[in-house]
Amino acid sequence: MKKSTFFSKKIKNALLRTVLLVSPFWADAQRRLSNVTSPEVLPDNSVIFRIKAPNVTKAQVVGTWNRRFKPDEMIKKDSVFEVKVGPIPSDMYEYDIVLDGIPVLDPLNKAVTRDGAYIQSRLLVPGGLGDIIDVKPVPHGDLKAVWYDSPTVGTSQRRMFIYTPPNYNKSNKKYPVMYLLHGGGGDEEVWVNRGRANYILDNLIAAGKAEPMIVVITNGDVNNVGSVLDRPANLSKKDNTGIGAMAAGVFEKSLVKDVIPYIESNYRVIADADHRAVRGFSMGGFHTQNITNANPSMFKYIGVMSMGLWSAARNDPNFDKAGYIAQLKELQRNNPKVYWIGMGTDDFLYNSGVALRKVYDEIGFKYTYRENIGNHDWNSWRMYLSEFGPLCFK
Amino acid sequence: MKKSTFFSKKIKNALLRTVLLVSPFWADAQRRLSNVTSPEVLPDNSVIFRIKAPNVTKAQVVGTWNRRFKPDEMIKKDSVFEVKVGPIPSDMYEYDIVLDGIPVLDPLNKAVTRDGAYIQSRLLVPGGLGDIIDVKPVPHGDLKAVWYDSPTVGTSQRRMFIYTPPNYNKSNKKYPVMYLLHGGGGDEEVWVNRGRANYILDNLIAAGKAEPMIVVITNGDVNNVGSVLDRPANLSKKDNTGIGAMAAGVFEKSLVKDVIPYIESNYRVIADADHRAVRGFSMGGFHTQNITNANPSMFKYIGVMSMGLWSAARNDPNFDKAGYIAQLKELQRNNPKVYWIGMGTDDFLYNSGVALRKVYDEIGFKYTYRENIGNHDWNSWRMYLSEFGPLCFK
Repeated sequence: MKKSTFFSKKIKNALLRTVLLVSPFWADAQRRLSNVTSPEVLPDNSVIFRIKAPNVTKAQVVGTWNRRFKPDEMIKKDSVFEVKVGPIPSDMYEYDIVLDGIPVLDPLNKAVTRDGAYIQSRLLVPGGLGDIIDVKPVPHGDLKAVWYDSPTVGTSQRRMFIYTPPNYNKSNKKYPVMYLLHGGGGDEEVWVNRGRANYILDNLIAAGKAEPMIVVITNGDVNNVGSVLDRPANLSKKDNTGIGAMAAGVFEKSLVKDVIPYIESNYRVIADADHRAVRGFSMGGFHTQNITNANPSMFKYIGVMSMGLWSAARNDPNFDKAGYIAQLKELQRNNPKVYWIGMGTDDFLYNSGVALRKVYDEIGFKYTYRENIGNHDWNSWRMYLSEFGPLCFK
Repeated sequence: MKKSTFFSKKIKNALLRTVLLVSPFWADAQRRLSNVTSPEVLPDNSVIFRIKAPNVTKAQVVGTWNRRFKPDEMIKKDSVFEVKVGPIPSDMYEYDIVLDGIPVLDPLNKAVTRDGAYIQSRLLVPGGLGDIIDVKPVPHGDLKAVWYDSPTVGTSQRRMFIYTPPNYNKSNKKYPVMYLLHGGGGDEEVWVNRGRANYILDNLIAAGKAEPMIVVITNGDVNNVGSVLDRPANLSKKDNTGIGAMAAGVFEKSLVKDVIPYIESNYRVIADADHRAVRGFSMGGFHTQNITNANPSMFKYIGVMSMGLWSAARNDPNFDKAGYIAQLKELQRNNPKVYWIGMGTDDFLYNSGVALRKVYDEIGFKYTYRENIGNHDWNSWRMYLSEFGPLCFK
C-alpha cells in the first residue's frame, strides 16, 4: 500500500502541475480537502457544498434548485466555506460557486455539464426524478456520433447523435424513431451532456415505461457543423450569429430532407408516421412546430416544450394567422396521436404559450397541456422527456 | 434584423440568468465583452487573452504552452485584463485564467476539455500540429459509445468508444484495430475529449498518412464503469482509489478477454496480430507493457508513451527481473513490427524510461525511441499518436 501511495502521489503531482501548482493557494486548498466531499448529498436530500478559499471574503452557491436564482450564502469556518441547502427535490441540477463575485466550477466535483456557453457543476439528488436521469445498473443503449451529408444546409458533413436501444445489435427488430431538438445557443451535444436523453431512455425502457426506440439528436444551428469541440477551431465564434439565423427555416428542411433519409437508410427503423416522433424545447419547439406544420403527414407524436407562438413571442405584427391556421388544420386532418405541450409557470415564453393554445383552441386542435412550476430550463426539459417518452408508439 | 435582435436578447437573458445574473459584475463584464475575443490567435500565432474583471487585482494565464508552467501575467487597462503571449508553436493547449489566485475557465471561450478532474479552456494554434488535431473539412469517422459485458472486471457493463473510419458503413471491407489506453486518473473519454484521437485519425487518413483503421478507446480504471458523467452519480468518488487499483492487472486481462472478443465479433476487423495495435500513455503505457508481455503473439504494433519500467518508477526492490526478461524474450521471438517508445525530456518518469531501455538493450530487444522536448502531458501524447498512427499496418 505504501508503494502505491508513493506512486500515486508522484503521478498526481505531475498532473496537478498543469493546473493547480500555478496557484499554490488553490493547490493547497484542494489537496487538503481531498478527503472532503462537495457536494455531499445527505439522506434527507439536503446537500452540503464546501470549498476551501482562505483569501476569499464572500462565497455563494447558485444552483438551478433555486427557481428564482437566489444565491445560497456560504459561511466561512477557518478557511473553508460551507453551506447546507435543501432538502432539494430529487432531480439533476446545475450550479456554480461564486467567490467574491467570480463564478467557478466546484473544484471537488468532477461532474460538469455544458449547454452552449454554460459550463457548470452538476448535482444529482437521488430518489425520484433523479433516478430517471442517473446512470443506473440497467441495460444501456449505445450512442453514436455520426457525420451525415447535409446538402440542404450546404455543408458537406454535419454531426448528430444516434441512440440505439439496448439489444439493438442482438436482434433484427425494426424500431420507431424520436427526433429530439435543442434550443437556441445549443448544439447536438446538449441533449446528451445536460439533457441525459440516453440515460433517461435507458431507464424508461428498463422499467417497461417506454417502448424501445431509436433517438436522433441533431444540431439545429445551421451555422455550425457540430458542437464547439466538434467543429473547426476557427469557426468557434460563428454561433454568435444567434437565434435569427437558427430560425431561418433551413434546419427544419434539412431534418426532413437529409436527416430522416439518412436514419431510414442506415438503421432498422419502421419508416412511417405512426413510428416517428419529433419534439424540442425553446428554439427546438419552434423548429418542431415548423416541421410538423409543413409536413403534416410525417409524425404522429409531436412535442413542443417551453415554446409558444413564435409570432407572439416576437410581437410580429405581420403574423399570417390565416396561413398558420390552414397548416394546422391540415395537421389536424392527419390526426396526430399525441400533440404534447409543456410549459413552466415561470418561463419567460409563458405568454407565447397562452397565445399558441388560444389559436389551437379556436380551431379545436387537440393537444395535451402539461404545466409545471418551473422555468425555461433543463429541469423542465428532462422531466418533459421522462413524461413524453412513455406516451410514444403505443 | 431588429426583431431577431430583440428575440435573441430575450432568450439570451433567460439563459444568462442561470449563471451570470447571479453575479451582476460578471454578467455585465462578459456581455460588454461579447464583441471581444479570447483567445485571439494572431497571424503570427501570438495569442491575446482577455478578461473583464474590474474587482480583481491580479490576473494570470497559465497554459501548457509554457512547459515550466510559468504564468503569463495579465495587464489591467480600465477593467479589462489582457496579455499577449507567443508566438506559440502550432498545437492544441489547455489553460486557465487565474484571478487573484482562483483558476477559472476563460468565460469567452466555449471550448473546454477534460482529463479526469482537470477541466480547462482549450487553445488551438493552427498551421502545423494544430491542423492535425483540429476538426478539418475532411471525411469524418463515426464515434460510438458502447456498453459491453465485462465479466473479467465483474461489472455487468462497461463503457468504451469505438471509432470507425470514414466510409466504414459504405463498404464490406475489414479493418485493422488500434487499442488506445489512457493514463492514471483518466477514463474512456479523455482520448476523445482532450486527446482528439478521432480527429487526428480523420486527418491522418485523409492525408493518406495512416491506414484506415478502427480505434478502440477503453476505460482502464476498473473501479468505474464509465467516465464521470457516464456512471452512477453516487459512484463518482470511487476514482479516488487511484493508481494502485488501476495497476492491479485486472484491466489488462479484461482487454484481452472482454474487449477484443467484443470488437472482433461486432465489427468488421482483420482479427490477427498483424492488424492489431495497442498503445497507451503513463498508466496506459504500463497497461500496454503488461498486455503485450503476457500475450506476446497478439499485437504486432505496440506503443509505450511517457512510461518506463514500472519497478524503476516505484523503486521496487522485489522486481522480478528474470521473469520480466523471460516475457520480453518471448515477445521478441514473436517479432513485433513496431515497438515504439515516446518520452519527453521533462517527464517525471524520464528515469524509469532510461531503466526500461536499459533492460531492452541488454537483451537486444528492438524498439524505436522518440524523445521530445516536452512534458508528461497531452501535447506529447497527441503528437505521439500523430507519429505512431502512420507506422501501423503497413
